[in-house]
Amino acid sequence: MKYYAGIDLGGTKIYSIIIDENGKILGREKIKTEGSDSFDNVIDRVKECYYGAIKNSNINEKEIEAIGMAVPSSVNVDKGILIYAPNLGSGWRNIELSKIMFEKLRRPFFMDNDVNMGVFGEYCLGAGKNYNHIYGLFVGTGIGGGYIKNGEIIRGVNYTAGEIGHMVVKIGGPKCNCGRKGCLEAISGKVGIINYIIKLVEKKGEKTILGEIAPNWKKGVGSSALSKCFMKNDRVVVKALTRAAKTIGIAIANLINAIGIEAIILGGGLIEELGDVLIPIIKEYMVEYSIADGAKGIPLLKAELGDDAVAMGAAWFTKQKENERYLYKG
Amino acid sequence: MKYYAGIDLGGTKIYSIIIDENGKILGREKIKTEGSDSFDNVIDRVKECYYGAIKNSNINEKEIEAIGMAVPSSVNVDKGILIYAPNLGSGWRNIELSKIMFEKLRRPFFMDNDVNMGVFGEYCLGAGKNYNHIYGLFVGTGIGGGYIKNGEIIRGVNYTAGEIGHMVVKIGGPKCNCGRKGCLEAISGKVGIINYIIKLVEKKGEKTILGEIAPNWKKGVGSSALSKCFMKNDRVVVKALTRAAKTIGIAIANLINAIGIEAIILGGGLIEELGDVLIPIIKEYMVEYSIADGAKGIPLLKAELGDDAVAMGAAWFTKQKENERYLYKG
Repeated sequence: MKYYAGIDLGGTKIYSIIIDENGKILGREKIKTEGSDSFDNVIDRVKECYYGAIKNSNINEKEIEAIGMAVPSSVNVDKGILIYAPNLGSGWRNIELSKIMFEKLRRPFFMDNDVNMGVFGEYCLGAGKNYNHIYGLFVGTGIGGGYIKNGEIIRGVNYTAGEIGHMVVKIGGPKCNCGRKGCLEAISGKVGIINYIIKLVEKKGEKTILGEIAPNWKKGVGSSALSKCFMKNDRVVVKALTRAAKTIGIAIANLINAIGIEAIILGGGLIEELGDVLIPIIKEYMVEYSIADGAKGIPLLKAELGDDAVAMGAAWFTKQKENERYLYKG
Repeated sequence: MKYYAGIDLGGTKIYSIIIDENGKILGREKIKTEGSDSFDNVIDRVKECYYGAIKNSNINEKEIEAIGMAVPSSVNVDKGILIYAPNLGSGWRNIELSKIMFEKLRRPFFMDNDVNMGVFGEYCLGAGKNYNHIYGLFVGTGIGGGYIKNGEIIRGVNYTAGEIGHMVVKIGGPKCNCGRKGCLEAISGKVGIINYIIKLVEKKGEKTILGEIAPNWKKGVGSSALSKCFMKNDRVVVKALTRAAKTIGIAIANLINAIGIEAIILGGGLIEELGDVLIPIIKEYMVEYSIADGAKGIPLLKAELGDDAVAMGAAWFTKQKENERYLYKG
């Protein structure tokens, strides 16, 4: 039996798993990304997390064939360079991280963007396994995406593909964190949802119970707080989430119209909490905005791998022979 | 030497060419699509046009290996069915046209959407020949598109891919002919441009010389009339065309962000007339709206095959061995 490691390096946590060649998970480890202002500190914690997962899997370090790591950044996968991760430390830029990690861990090493790896995990082992041309959307604070066709992760010339959160759907619309206006995530990501609720409350004088559930809601809320308000039929929250879901539906129709996707995978905090109520709205708008019944038979699939998706995808990717050219081996 | 025929069946004209196995054009024929209210009449004229091109090529009908025909409709290429062509007759629907044409012309027969064939022609023999992941946009009365990756025309589950003209870029924006609001072509197609000029003139009291050049402009104008006004620096026309170009740039950035396209091919009447002034504006917005320098090194290529593109693409497609499964042979 052969073993592979996957590491999901996020801004708040590091998550590692070990899988065997069948994709079965042998063990996991999760630790906080503390002290992320010190680069060396973070790298040490990644190492600690990796060895923790190995220990929990009852295997020997030397049995690991390869390690895949996912990072919150676009990645030059051919050179193993992290391009820019605003949420790590005070912003990591242009780091030859595959080389550095290989020198620390001494196993063939691969690195890619976290959403790419999550969608790849779902494509191979989760919700997408019966489809060949898929797009994954992960809806949380922002909206990330990943595009896969015939087993290939399509990353684009500059490794920026998957940025469906910055598809402009409303020229002149709400301001986005990226500085532009009218991006999908400025309407349908949690930041966009909160900004819209602030507008309804402060400018239109509408009332919400969100403040009772999450006192600091204007600075950001968990998906579960939004869910609680939705379930209590809070008019403002229902309005904001419905608008978010409709807009995601339109963005998906844009994809179907432009590139004829075969299946959509939806994941992320907001979908995990509220998928059952949001997906039917997303679907309605996806169908309505697809030209000539273009959405007929195209499923909206809920991601299945949960917190494991990204690390699983990273580990599984290293197992695929065709991707050996990406592996850093010193 | 082997020979292939391409037929471009449009709402106003039928255009046929004969090429050899190197893609060299031996002869052409063009006739009007008169009497298009009678189906049989149109089919007879297609036949006439095809035989005209054979005659002009000095070859024998029996030397034609296969015929490719492009139609202004989505096409079920696997079954040779024209799905819906609003601009042919009073609207053709669900016609087994490959079978009918094969029975008339007795050569292996293939049929696809006209823009798909035009983009395929440019991909193989024109502006796109050095690229593997391209999107073509043809800007005329509306905006059509075609998507090709690794030699495969991506048509989508319901054969509707390529409909970038109906990418919603401005939710709640101008009404589109499709019934929805805020589609790209409702802003950047000629119909959208004219509607905007009407608004500027009638609601905002702005002045244009367009009426001097094209007295019936409110019912539609040629690209050359718009070009003349632009060159004379007509403020209203400059404003409308600039808005159209900016919006095309944003739509292309949406594609780059979402799917990391490698090159863009631009064609159609408006680009042929005004490409030199519009493409720099399109480029500026494409760059500005692409996340993380995602547009770096992605060229905007002007289509090279002109009026031949669609028929060339159709003929060349039939030549490709991997596509034999599409050929109707009785």
